[in-house]
Amino acid sequence: MIFRSSQFFAALMAAAFALATPAFAADSAKGGANAAQQKVIFQVSDADPKKWNLTLNNASNVQEDLGKANVEIEIVAYGPGIDMLKLDSPVGGRIDEATTAGVKVIACENTMRGQKLTRADMLNGIGYVPAGVIELMSRQQQGWAYIRP
Amino acid sequence: MIFRSSQFFAALMAAAFALATPAFAADSAKGGANAAQQKVIFQVSDADPKKWNLTLNNASNVQEDLGKANVEIEIVAYGPGIDMLKLDSPVGGRIDEATTAGVKVIACENTMRGQKLTRADMLNGIGYVPAGVIELMSRQQQGWAYIRP
Amino acid sequence: MIFRSSQFFAALMAAAFALATPAFAADSAKGGANAAQQKVIFQVSDADPKKWNLTLNNASNVQEDLGKANVEIEIVAYGPGIDMLKLDSPVGGRIDEATTAGVKVIACENTMRGQKLTRADMLNGIGYVPAGVIELMSRQQQGWAYIRP
Repeated sequence: MIFRSSQFFAALMAAAFALATPAFAADSAKGGANAAQQKVIFQVSDADPKKWNLTLNNASNVQEDLGKANVEIEIVAYGPGIDMLKLDSPVGGRIDEATTAGVKVIACENTMRGQKLTRADMLNGIGYVPAGVIELMSRQQQGWAYIRP
Repeated sequence: MIFRSSQFFAALMAAAFALATPAFAADSAKGGANAAQQKVIFQVSDADPKKWNLTLNNASNVQEDLGKANVEIEIVAYGPGIDMLKLDSPVGGRIDEATTAGVKVIACENTMRGQKLTRADMLNGIGYVPAGVIELMSRQQQGWAYIRP
Repeated sequence: MIFRSSQFFAALMAAAFALATPAFAADSAKGGANAAQQKVIFQVSDADPKKWNLTLNNASNVQEDLGKANVEIEIVAYGPGIDMLKLDSPVGGRIDEATTAGVKVIACENTMRGQKLTRADMLNGIGYVPAGVIELMSRQQQGWAYIRP
C-alpha cells in the first residue's frame, strides 16, 4: 500500500508540476499546439490593395521563417476586404501563389450575400466560411494567433 | 484501503485526462466558456463612420448567426473612435438598436477626459470603463476573442 | 495509511479545484502571469503618425493606470509602420520617453531588409526582432494581449 500510495503521490506531483508549468498550460490552451505547429489567422477588412499586399507578404514571410510545414496560416477577407478575392482583384496572381503554397485564403459568405456576389465572381482556389468574423473568433478560441495588418 | 486508493487513482486519471485534453484546457483558458457561450470584444479606434457601421454589422451578424443568447458582445470605443458614441454620432440609432439587442457598447473615460467630454455629451444606453485599452486587455485575458474591424 | 490517503485526497481536490477554477486556468494560459503582471503587445503597421501617437498614448496610459511595475509592454513596428522608428521619426522624442519608462519598442528586421534600412538608420534605445509578425504571434501564444490601435 505504501508503495502504491507513493505512486499516486508521484503521479499527483507530476500533475501538479504540469499545472504549475506555464509552458505546459500555454501549450494546452493552444489546443495541443507544439513548437512545430504554429497557427495564425490574418484579417483583411479594408478595401486597400496595400493592405492586401502587406498581408500576403506577412503570410509568405511567416512560411519562410518558420518553414511551411511548421505553420498553419489562414487569411480571412470580409466586409470591404472582400474585394481582395474577386476575379478582378489586383492581387489575384499572388493569391494563387499563396494558396499553392498552402495558405488558406477564405471569403466571408455573409459579406458576399450582402454584395450579391456568388462563387462565380470569386478567384479560384479560395475557401469559404458562412461568417468571417465567426471564423476569426473560433480560431482565436482554438488558440490561433490573430493578426490584423 | 485498496478500494479507497483505487478511487484516488480513478480521480487522478480523470484529472490527468482533463489536463491532456486540449478541448478542456482551451475551454478553461476561456474562463469556463462553453460552446453555447462565446465571447467577443470589438475595438473601435478610428474616426471613421464606415468602420462604425462595419463593426455594428459584425455584431449584429454574430448575434444572428450564433443566437443572441449564445454570445456575449462588447464594443469598446476609444481614441479617435470615441466620436462613434457622442450625441451627434451618425450611427446613434444603430447603437440604440445594438444596446437594446444586448450588445454592450462602451466608452473609454481616459479618452473622454482627454477630449473634455462628459457623460452628458454621450449617447444614452452605453456603458463606461476607466480605460478602453485595459478593458480590451482584460477581456482577452479572460478568453474573449478580439476583433479590430 | 488512512491519514496519508486523506492527504492525497486533499491534494487531489486542490488540483481538481484549480483545474475547475477559470481564474487559475486563464492565469496558467497566460504563461504564469498573475494579476500584478499583465502583458500587452501593440502592433504598428501603418505609416500614420496619428496612429503612432495613439499607440504611445495607449502605452503610457496603461503604465499609469496599472503601475509601471505591474505591466510589461511591447510595441512592434513592421511594414509601413517601420517609419515610426527611423531617425527622422516625428515621434522620436516620445519613443525615447517610452523606452526610458520601460516600454520595449521593437523594429522588424524583415521590414528593414526590404527597405534597405540598417540599425544606423534607426532610433537609439529600440530593440530588434527578425520578424515582427512572428513576435506578435509568439507573444499571443505566451498569453499576451494584442492591441492593434
